[in-house]
Amino acid sequence: MALRRVLGLGAALGRRSFCSKQPLPPDFVEALRAVVGAPNVSTATAVREQHGHDESMHDCAPPDAVVWPQAVEQVQELAALCHRCRVPMVPFGTGTGLEGGVNAVQGGVCFDLSRMDAITELSLEDFSVVVEPGVTRKALNKHLRGTGLWFPVDPGADASLCGMAATGASGTNAVRYGTMRPNVLNLRVVLPDGRLLHTAGPGRQPRWAPGGARKGRDGTGRDGCPPAPRSPPSRRKRAAGYDLTSLFVGSEGTLGFLTQATLRLHPLPEAVAVTTAAFPSVRAAVACTVQVLQAAVPVARIEFLDEVMVEACSRFSKLELPAAATLLLELHGSRRGLAEQQQQTEEIVQLNGGSSLAWAKQLEEREQLWAMRHSAWYAALALRPGCQGYSTDVCVPISRLPDVVVETKQDLQDSGITGPMVGHVGDGNFHCIIVFNTQDPAEARRVHAFTERLGRRALAAGGTCTGEHGVGLGKRALLREELGQEGLDTLRSIKTALDPHNLMNPGKVL
Amino acid sequence: MALRRVLGLGAALGRRSFCSKQPLPPDFVEALRAVVGAPNVSTATAVREQHGHDESMHDCAPPDAVVWPQAVEQVQELAALCHRCRVPMVPFGTGTGLEGGVNAVQGGVCFDLSRMDAITELSLEDFSVVVEPGVTRKALNKHLRGTGLWFPVDPGADASLCGMAATGASGTNAVRYGTMRPNVLNLRVVLPDGRLLHTAGPGRQPRWAPGGARKGRDGTGRDGCPPAPRSPPSRRKRAAGYDLTSLFVGSEGTLGFLTQATLRLHPLPEAVAVTTAAFPSVRAAVACTVQVLQAAVPVARIEFLDEVMVEACSRFSKLELPAAATLLLELHGSRRGLAEQQQQTEEIVQLNGGSSLAWAKQLEEREQLWAMRHSAWYAALALRPGCQGYSTDVCVPISRLPDVVVETKQDLQDSGITGPMVGHVGDGNFHCIIVFNTQDPAEARRVHAFTERLGRRALAAGGTCTGEHGVGLGKRALLREELGQEGLDTLRSIKTALDPHNLMNPGKVL
Repeated sequence: MALRRVLGLGAALGRRSFCSKQPLPPDFVEALRAVVGAPNVSTATAVREQHGHDESMHDCAPPDAVVWPQAVEQVQELAALCHRCRVPMVPFGTGTGLEGGVNAVQGGVCFDLSRMDAITELSLEDFSVVVEPGVTRKALNKHLRGTGLWFPVDPGADASLCGMAATGASGTNAVRYGTMRPNVLNLRVVLPDGRLLHTAGPGRQPRWAPGGARKGRDGTGRDGCPPAPRSPPSRRKRAAGYDLTSLFVGSEGTLGFLTQATLRLHPLPEAVAVTTAAFPSVRAAVACTVQVLQAAVPVARIEFLDEVMVEACSRFSKLELPAAATLLLELHGSRRGLAEQQQQTEEIVQLNGGSSLAWAKQLEEREQLWAMRHSAWYAALALRPGCQGYSTDVCVPISRLPDVVVETKQDLQDSGITGPMVGHVGDGNFHCIIVFNTQDPAEARRVHAFTERLGRRALAAGGTCTGEHGVGLGKRALLREELGQEGLDTLRSIKTALDPHNLMNPGKVL
Repeated sequence: MALRRVLGLGAALGRRSFCSKQPLPPDFVEALRAVVGAPNVSTATAVREQHGHDESMHDCAPPDAVVWPQAVEQVQELAALCHRCRVPMVPFGTGTGLEGGVNAVQGGVCFDLSRMDAITELSLEDFSVVVEPGVTRKALNKHLRGTGLWFPVDPGADASLCGMAATGASGTNAVRYGTMRPNVLNLRVVLPDGRLLHTAGPGRQPRWAPGGARKGRDGTGRDGCPPAPRSPPSRRKRAAGYDLTSLFVGSEGTLGFLTQATLRLHPLPEAVAVTTAAFPSVRAAVACTVQVLQAAVPVARIEFLDEVMVEACSRFSKLELPAAATLLLELHGSRRGLAEQQQQTEEIVQLNGGSSLAWAKQLEEREQLWAMRHSAWYAALALRPGCQGYSTDVCVPISRLPDVVVETKQDLQDSGITGPMVGHVGDGNFHCIIVFNTQDPAEARRVHAFTERLGRRALAAGGTCTGEHGVGLGKRALLREELGQEGLDTLRSIKTALDPHNLMNPGKVL
């Protein structure tokens, strides 16, 4: 735990937050137990510390108590109790965030929602399903097996889907299937005072289709399954009032608890093919990405790894890829459509001096390549054993991507920082996984200066300081630069309107 | 003007709103003139009445004055002036709304933004462009000619793009290209007190690409044009703070003035084909739609017309279509891809007992079919000369669409109402164009009762009372039923936070 350190501004902000921390009122823990039962409340140091951090490097900030509600009514009752006593509340899903979103910087009560894990109202005709916060993306996709549908948003970690909605997460499939925002249709929110809000209205979701869905789940095999649907309807149209769903997606737990999400599902593609392509330079790989997008190829995933990252991943996953700027490409389509996409892609790869491997079409081969990609974090950490990792998250307009990537690579080199690059370049979003010795103040300062420069470089290019990890604790200063004073004031007005006592996840975003 | 009547609840609400109307403060009109110059302010009755209504049946509610600002700084100064004097403000684009959004029910100043009509920062690489409120969708698409890009959202009317953003409009292409929401990347908003907000941050938009874009506009022909881009990057990823852009899209002028919008453009499809298919029943046509969507056909437009509508349109446009439940289908794709789509579509049409015409591929033929569809409003009015029209706008999950359409058709028949049906059925959204004698109180009551039943039928099916026209004046009661009390309270909190004196388009939505 001593190794967890706040990067740059985080330290100062974290300390300030700790200063304003109040002890829990007398008998408060008893009152929590009265709501959820004694076994579902803990004040043990180990439990509190476990809930006081995510996967980022921000200092652990343990809550004063952890509760495990089992039903939405309990969340409401607990929130009302905290609200009456002015105790801060922090929602907790899987703790896999990367910006300190769950760190209880002002203490208070951590609501661990992992035991609310129902999957309901699966509708094969409407391509939708309703999940509680304890359902992770892998659990949902396992549940969907045999239905012909899947939920494609994939941030790498097996995160809670409600947590992904709270963070506005995305990942490798976003270039084709979108981020969380277009894939959330409705949210059931417990407001800071315990009231229950349905962002698109209560019951504004399709009914469960018992025949089809149940058959699929019983594992009766392909024959027992309903006919596999193959295409999604578009996100449901609504022009009824302000878009509250989009407001709560990406609110990072600062406006209320997401206790249920209605999600849009997608048909499993008929055919899938994956390949890697090695390029003579970073610029060539990124330019190839831009051209693939501009050439109408409906690519499902297009991931970039620089030569440092490829070498690290290749060694970590025992593959033998050349140490070159590389794209990892996945195509989805009908069998006929896929052939057309493959041909177009190969032409563009060649035009940019790239050489691609054969297309992997079997599940096992494809999974091997994606396992390599998903190991990037650990492969990077293995470059400097004993050091810590931090991932940057800028996103820029696609036209500026080649310049920004090349400049950033040069900056890494000039700064003497180990930071292999990996990115969802189809969205203009890339990460430098910085591996450094947090105990070395000089190195930590260099890293901090680099991340600030990178954030400003993205802003200057018309981009954002965070494509998918969120603002959390560490990017509040950059958020001000990105949105301007009026933007920040507007966010603050909304926060104050919905959480006037600043009890929901205080110290985050704003 | 006497014929304009408020449908149902509107009358009562309109009257109440008029009661709270205050006269303008002394010398206020002079102060307006000082900002924009005397020729850009009018208090003439004819001008005020012209700005006091849209295309709906809601009573004309003229503002006290109309101003024509020429620049965003003037909008800011005018807003600050109105804010200081607590005078209501109503934004006005083209006045083509359908829910009374521009009616100045509490008087005040109408801001006619049509003279701010710059198109800037066209980026062919990033598929984006920046428009001011005076730019209509047709003007933009004319501007884009020769670039290989277009803006597909098409609500029928040649509306202002910022007005379309304010209403959360959509139309025939939404099933493939989405509504306004995913196609707006950033908004420059003048807040009620005159401050300037950029919803995704100032300068968060790509730079103008002078070479390419200008060449296209100069009309130098295909050879002078930049290579036509063919595919859009996805909507830019951002996880930086609450999604203010989505909050202002669909806010119907109640939170601020949209004085500039950064829009996402799309590549013109390589090939396009249109056909009509006649079905033995309404249920068969709607079922065909559902199956086309479920069968992975990436249909660009799929419009439904019932037999009454087809007969009216056919007569109005001098075509000879059979009077049957009909689908009008448009496919976009590569030449090869289109053939696959056509084959799939034909198979599903036949499965549902439909018979389709030959595919129209030439521009002229296609335009003739769409002109027929776009004449639906006038063709419906021609069914009962001297009567008025009102369009309903419910939207339901696709699985419920066949039942809801069939029940609604039966209800129309039982109620003795003329209401041909037309709809963007690919989105679950359909309209009954009700043609009735507003001077006949009994008929008006029947129509009102029908629209309430239809709204509730949609809500009971998990749908919405408005898919694309907005809430405006007439659907406020249904909005409460749709969102519930907590939903409405949350909207009110946001409205109060951003417009504490309720000066922006008061009396609408809430």
